[in-house]
Amino acid sequence: MDAPLPPGVSRASFDKALHEFADIVGSRWASSSREDRETYHDAFNAGDPLEFVSGGFVAPADVAEVQAVVRAAGRYGVPLWPVSAGKNLAYGGAAPLVPGTVVLDLKRMNRILEVNEDLAYAFVEPGVSFFDLHRHLRENGIKLWMSVPGPGWGSIVGNGLERGIGYGYYSDHFGTSAGIEVVLPDGELLRLGMGAMANSNSWPLLNYGYGPSLDGMFTQSNYGVVTKMSRFLLPEPESYLSCEVNCRYDAGLEALIDTLRPFQLEETIRNPVVITHALLVASFLSVRSDWYDGNGPVPDAVLDAIQEKLKLGRWNASFALYGSERKVDDSWQRIKQAVSSIDGVELAERRYHPGDPIVHPRDQSQAGIPNLAEFSLANWYGSGGHIDFSPVGPATGKHARIMVDRARRRIQGFGFDHLSGFYCDKRVMRYINTIVFRKDDAAELARVRDMFGLLITDLAEGGYGEYRTHLAYMDAVASTYDFNDHAMRRFQERLKNAIDPKGIIAPGKSGVWPRGYRA
Amino acid sequence: MDAPLPPGVSRASFDKALHEFADIVGSRWASSSREDRETYHDAFNAGDPLEFVSGGFVAPADVAEVQAVVRAAGRYGVPLWPVSAGKNLAYGGAAPLVPGTVVLDLKRMNRILEVNEDLAYAFVEPGVSFFDLHRHLRENGIKLWMSVPGPGWGSIVGNGLERGIGYGYYSDHFGTSAGIEVVLPDGELLRLGMGAMANSNSWPLLNYGYGPSLDGMFTQSNYGVVTKMSRFLLPEPESYLSCEVNCRYDAGLEALIDTLRPFQLEETIRNPVVITHALLVASFLSVRSDWYDGNGPVPDAVLDAIQEKLKLGRWNASFALYGSERKVDDSWQRIKQAVSSIDGVELAERRYHPGDPIVHPRDQSQAGIPNLAEFSLANWYGSGGHIDFSPVGPATGKHARIMVDRARRRIQGFGFDHLSGFYCDKRVMRYINTIVFRKDDAAELARVRDMFGLLITDLAEGGYGEYRTHLAYMDAVASTYDFNDHAMRRFQERLKNAIDPKGIIAPGKSGVWPRGYRA
Repeated sequence: MDAPLPPGVSRASFDKALHEFADIVGSRWASSSREDRETYHDAFNAGDPLEFVSGGFVAPADVAEVQAVVRAAGRYGVPLWPVSAGKNLAYGGAAPLVPGTVVLDLKRMNRILEVNEDLAYAFVEPGVSFFDLHRHLRENGIKLWMSVPGPGWGSIVGNGLERGIGYGYYSDHFGTSAGIEVVLPDGELLRLGMGAMANSNSWPLLNYGYGPSLDGMFTQSNYGVVTKMSRFLLPEPESYLSCEVNCRYDAGLEALIDTLRPFQLEETIRNPVVITHALLVASFLSVRSDWYDGNGPVPDAVLDAIQEKLKLGRWNASFALYGSERKVDDSWQRIKQAVSSIDGVELAERRYHPGDPIVHPRDQSQAGIPNLAEFSLANWYGSGGHIDFSPVGPATGKHARIMVDRARRRIQGFGFDHLSGFYCDKRVMRYINTIVFRKDDAAELARVRDMFGLLITDLAEGGYGEYRTHLAYMDAVASTYDFNDHAMRRFQERLKNAIDPKGIIAPGKSGVWPRGYRA
Repeated sequence: MDAPLPPGVSRASFDKALHEFADIVGSRWASSSREDRETYHDAFNAGDPLEFVSGGFVAPADVAEVQAVVRAAGRYGVPLWPVSAGKNLAYGGAAPLVPGTVVLDLKRMNRILEVNEDLAYAFVEPGVSFFDLHRHLRENGIKLWMSVPGPGWGSIVGNGLERGIGYGYYSDHFGTSAGIEVVLPDGELLRLGMGAMANSNSWPLLNYGYGPSLDGMFTQSNYGVVTKMSRFLLPEPESYLSCEVNCRYDAGLEALIDTLRPFQLEETIRNPVVITHALLVASFLSVRSDWYDGNGPVPDAVLDAIQEKLKLGRWNASFALYGSERKVDDSWQRIKQAVSSIDGVELAERRYHPGDPIVHPRDQSQAGIPNLAEFSLANWYGSGGHIDFSPVGPATGKHARIMVDRARRRIQGFGFDHLSGFYCDKRVMRYINTIVFRKDDAAELARVRDMFGLLITDLAEGGYGEYRTHLAYMDAVASTYDFNDHAMRRFQERLKNAIDPKGIIAPGKSGVWPRGYRA
């Protein structure tokens, strides 16, 4: 099969572009062979894994090569889909939205440019993964902790640009970054924040420079290719207490959220409070057939058995306390007192000091140690497809209940298990619904697609919008951001046409289409 | 004297525009009378107070009127200079950069739209000052604390949009905001973050929506008129300790910064560590003639006498600890131990519990109580002109010393007193040099102008850029952000031309000029 062509690009133009790419980066690092095209498929797609198939890839070694590739792409009108490590699990992996788009793979740009212990940050290229940085810190005896997301194989830069969240102290990964460098669609190099001054001392430290601040524009974005970024780190604390506040009953969800939120607002709890449903925890630790062989959602009676066996609550809140021993003890005592009146509550704690081994996966995550423990959830049904439905709501018990009810009715109505958890920040929570399905069952894939579209609508009707979504639903999610006749999308597209008039970078990403693509 | 006309606008067009403005907002609220034009002068300008004179003003009552005014301005090509409360002390007040620009005064839009105690935020219009919100919180018994800047008369929205900093817990005022609504230069209404969804529950809570995040674009910006914004607040803490760590010797500056920074990095200290030179403190509390009548900078011997009399260090670090009594005590004990080895250190502390009266101005500021105490500095020489020179550097003692040396040499070289202080965050510090001068001395004003230009260059040569500046230096400061042939300014101007092709909103602000203005 020939490589699919991007819209409006002739075979001859496409081939010339690929030749130029190969001239720039070396022939090993640019190809449209079938094998290379399919390397960048989305293994978890709820549909044909090749639905979003690339036209090939190009992997530059440095910023100058990125600039040259972007300029060549512009000459031939060949769109590029930039990926850092290309994981983006559950949201499309490395696959581009428009078939035939060439993946601009930044994996070779994997230098850790600087780690500064005095000012507690790392400055990295897009190819550096959480695992890479963690290894570097450990091997060099650097006493700084990262915030890591669930699976740790992804790119620090890529996760930040998607506005990913983590389990650690600085859990808002984009909000605790600076030092961004961007190759614009015309090949120009731009440095953001203080880096707009050529000899700045503060580039990796502050994302405000002078005049309009542009960092946010380059997140979830197709306005440029980010080639450098810093991430703030936390000095290793004197002590670290991993805390669990679990509740046996479904009805405890509201109380968990409303009782723990004040401790987040006062910053006694500084990392996200993650409140996980028993069935999602079970999917990390086991497979469905261990518990139930029936069709349709796992019944409540089975849930009770799972809770009993795995010693779980129906809802399981975990978070961390960091700092001096006395501060941590005081904080935990105040929290324990506050939650003690919740019916069916059960507490657990695990304390660590510098040098102590940390083996519990959640405790690793909260201590900035990347791992892949949560990844096993994809095998819940056996043949692991997995996408996430991730609406945002105000961090109150009342809103949590509404979100659970709306998502559960729809997901169970389609016969799927409802695996979900809340990532609560001070004021908002992201409600991650992990949709796991059998990849080898075409009818089931079709049901997932239908269900997902309805979930988007169900939650949007209640005022809850997704913070991030899979390729297949980018337009649908963007459509729910509908204030003033979709003023945001119209404005984002006006910017797109000003910044990228040829529509070279990631057409369609986040529902933002260049001129010519949108009818 | 007739009102000055904006470039390229005829008297007839200008008058027609003013008539339309009056039709929209009512004749009381739009005028180009001499008195009204001059109301918006910059009282602290280092030059003719009417150097930056407006062509008049228009004060809409609501968002629909803002939209109508912006559209009418576009029809006649009359530029508008949006101000919230119009204070912007030391950076130009309410005055527009281009003479003849009409001030778009948002003071009538002064509603506190919502204060939410459960989620700890306020949602306000641009005309709401720090004083207004504080009064509202107090009168309604709402136990939430703001972060306030030095003088408290300014607008919460305006200060946030200028990326102002405060003394409280959430000292990065823009970084702790969301819920932005913008009238674009074509009159379209845009809501940012989650507000891009019409019925969103999370608009005031999260500045990330879906796709490219645009909040930062509208800071220090002329891309639109911000008409709503939220600000996060801190629940009143169980106890509050105001701490001082002062050092008698100039040489203690480095040790203060390097010893206190780790406590900020670990967030034991959560508000800025403000390290003020003795002479700046003296300017809050006294006038120069109390101490010295000579020409040229106050000599070191007089400084010693000031320190002795006012019981000051040469450098005076103040910060706050908030939280439970035990946490605060533990934190202060750890800090005291760390600073005890600094030669010439002196400590002070003042403890408060809910309901305690707070009278010390710094303690008020750290507790979110706005005041005007620092404002008296403008009278240091008697006839109060005042502009600020505000470079940013990495928050280390080494960089602090370099910045002090460069600024002091230049400022004292011009015969002025060097009044300065550091606002230290975890990783960066803003070094505020308060330049006070006699407004009635034309030669002195000319010296200030010359000196300021050289200060910008002196610090830029060392890699330090201003975070904010006065009207008169916007171009000069923008020019120091020079990476890749001023790629940032060129990109900001490309966006300007896409968003505001008629150049209606605040031409020249932050060095960003619309097409036609720039030769």
